Amino acid sequence: MLNLHEANIEKLTFRTALVSKALSEIVVQKYGGSSVADIDRIKRIASRIVETKNSGKKVVAVVSALGDSTDELMSLANQLTPSPPTREVDMLLASGEQRSIALLSIAIHALGEIAISFTGAQVGIVTDTSHTKAKIVEVRAERIKKELDKNKIVIVAGFQGVTLDEDITTLGRGGSDTTAVAIAAELKASCQIYSDVEGVFTADPRIIPGARKLDEVSFEEMLEMAATGAKVLQLRSVEYGRNHGVPMEVRSSFSKESGTCILEESQMKEKAIISGVTHDNDEAKITLLGVPDRPGIAAKVFGSLAKGNINVDMIIQNVSEQGITDISFTVPKDDLAKGKELVEIAVKKLEAKGSTYDDNIAKVSLVGAGMKSHPGVAAKMFEVFAEEGINIEMISTSSIKISCVIKEEDTVKAVSALHNAFNLERGSA
Amino acid sequence: MLNLHEANIEKLTFRTALVSKALSEIVVQKYGGSSVADIDRIKRIASRIVETKNSGKKVVAVVSALGDSTDELMSLANQLTPSPPTREVDMLLASGEQRSIALLSIAIHALGEIAISFTGAQVGIVTDTSHTKAKIVEVRAERIKKELDKNKIVIVAGFQGVTLDEDITTLGRGGSDTTAVAIAAELKASCQIYSDVEGVFTADPRIIPGARKLDEVSFEEMLEMAATGAKVLQLRSVEYGRNHGVPMEVRSSFSKESGTCILEESQMKEKAIISGVTHDNDEAKITLLGVPDRPGIAAKVFGSLAKGNINVDMIIQNVSEQGITDISFTVPKDDLAKGKELVEIAVKKLEAKGSTYDDNIAKVSLVGAGMKSHPGVAAKMFEVFAEEGINIEMISTSSIKISCVIKEEDTVKAVSALHNAFNLERGSA
Repeated sequence: MLNLHEANIEKLTFRTALVSKALSEIVVQKYGGSSVADIDRIKRIASRIVETKNSGKKVVAVVSALGDSTDELMSLANQLTPSPPTREVDMLLASGEQRSIALLSIAIHALGEIAISFTGAQVGIVTDTSHTKAKIVEVRAERIKKELDKNKIVIVAGFQGVTLDEDITTLGRGGSDTTAVAIAAELKASCQIYSDVEGVFTADPRIIPGARKLDEVSFEEMLEMAATGAKVLQLRSVEYGRNHGVPMEVRSSFSKESGTCILEESQMKEKAIISGVTHDNDEAKITLLGVPDRPGIAAKVFGSLAKGNINVDMIIQNVSEQGITDISFTVPKDDLAKGKELVEIAVKKLEAKGSTYDDNIAKVSLVGAGMKSHPGVAAKMFEVFAEEGINIEMISTSSIKISCVIKEEDTVKAVSALHNAFNLERGSA
Repeated sequence: MLNLHEANIEKLTFRTALVSKALSEIVVQKYGGSSVADIDRIKRIASRIVETKNSGKKVVAVVSALGDSTDELMSLANQLTPSPPTREVDMLLASGEQRSIALLSIAIHALGEIAISFTGAQVGIVTDTSHTKAKIVEVRAERIKKELDKNKIVIVAGFQGVTLDEDITTLGRGGSDTTAVAIAAELKASCQIYSDVEGVFTADPRIIPGARKLDEVSFEEMLEMAATGAKVLQLRSVEYGRNHGVPMEVRSSFSKESGTCILEESQMKEKAIISGVTHDNDEAKITLLGVPDRPGIAAKVFGSLAKGNINVDMIIQNVSEQGITDISFTVPKDDLAKGKELVEIAVKKLEAKGSTYDDNIAKVSLVGAGMKSHPGVAAKMFEVFAEEGINIEMISTSSIKISCVIKEEDTVKAVSALHNAFNLERGSA
């Protein structure tokens, strides 16, 4: 098992070398909540980190809160009020990673190695002031470098940072991935993201048993996959990795199998036309009916949604008939209630006819860098849906992605049919 | 109920005014773990704090970790190793108060008031580097003052601080009391310590049902009581209060009854000869037998114990016979194992005859400022023990305290007999 693991590290180092000559032997490993869910798992991760160090690396481990503890903390806060102040929510949630870094550090000491743990504030993960969804603006990694130079294993709390006023912030769901990539960027290191999945798959293996693990995927493909429902990595972490040229690998903390490497497209060995089919059941559709079709209307509607901090995904405006039009768009289901409020205000202001809502939708997407040079992918996708009797409600495309909104109950049928039609299953690539 | 509460605040303010003319209307309230053990209790404390603010005060609340969470965290650490590194233990434990301050702050927001929570590091509770038992060296209260000036309720994590290197420290058991008093000293405020007891009693009410709550007690008496087993306040917090002239009140977070005020002796209205009987079952006795009686021997023995960070309490050296002597002393039971080790090394080095250990002891003490001017208290104490057939193993005195070490099983009998003999029960004062 050890050999396989070492082989992977070698492989990663090789790739790393391609990206930047300045890369040192530092590796940043990120362990998610399920990897540190209990004492036994913490011990296992500790061994893994010590093994990596013994193989000659300097290790920085970025850790999430134990198991479901973040959810448990939020539920405590919500027992007090449905809308707790975000600064205090961040104070509360940040205690979660503080617990896991300390325990992991203690577990490493128990193995005879020296580890030192740091909160986000202590290692200078400086963010903006958007509590609960803060963005990293700077990483002041001096303390990490100093401790690595003393031959210590450095454990850093993921998901959290600190404002210039020394208030604690959190980075939103999956934020630990971004912490890891940001630190790797600053240290010119490679970044391994460990979780309970073995890598990036051609489709969600929970619904498509024949889904295949990808060896490689480009940053752009990964961005589209993350944006269209693949939950393996936080979107922002991939953007950060791409922008700073950080070689990333997604792999399982429960096995020593190699995972999926995320690379610049130019460094990929093979380029498939389609890399994967993703789906997203977490969106809802809002339609404004009978909107006057004149300049500035869309700006008003989406401006007020943006002010309300609601992420709008797909937007479709139908052809105008007699000066009025319909506008449909999708928002995260969690934001539907707030979105409704804002849209109903807009309906009155704009003298539109009304609005409708549908949270019974799914977004199914095809992602592949090869799409750019292979026309006809969209046509084939629509054909597959037609054959299956699946109605398409909205369509949105980019150069390497096609997304269709369909009825939620058709999700599995649609993903499965596309996975087959584009020969993505195991053994067919 | 509100009136009674307000009356108490008035009373405290009156006393406060006696101590320093510079006192502002700030009150520092400390809530222990049992006061914030669950969501309902947190809500109750939040109401109490808001009430205090509405009565015209500026409030700083210092909070301990929820219920038994500190013990639970230590047990997690001990599942990894019996001797976790203390820096990492502090990182782990400090997460506990971070949780409770955030929840309390959220609970106050739910009541429509603005609160802001801070970790020890954030409000500049600067300590030395003795992890797990750090001492406060400075309180940089600028941020607290700034937020109080904005009319916010300030919530501060007790028990924790930060070194000049930005490492998180904890202050040891009961450390939140010291945090509260240290902040009160810096803000020239008064300090209320809320816990699950109603105040300082003439004896432990759990074993002496007739024990009486004291209205007042002097700093010196409180110091002796804390040092001899009264668990109501951490010794160091009382020292801090005395040294900085912080008027303190110990009271229950579950009732609105007034508690016990801790004052300068000169400000007390009545001075009892004896204020209370305390007992301590947490010590063990070590005896070095046949030690050569020459200068420097005691320094060697106790020097090595001090280096091992073991707090030695009572020390008795018997009269020397033929150049050899016995030395007995008490240490906390928790330190007995380590103490034994060090003593056995000393026995060999000093060529002493041997050593004995007894953890079946109790220290029972009489404390009272009036003792200074009333001779005969010690004689009466020994008489009471003689009448009850209780053997005295060690005796130690100060100007306002007499302590006797007896067999542990005689504890209740001894405390009860002294409590009666010195007329301390309810109604007799």
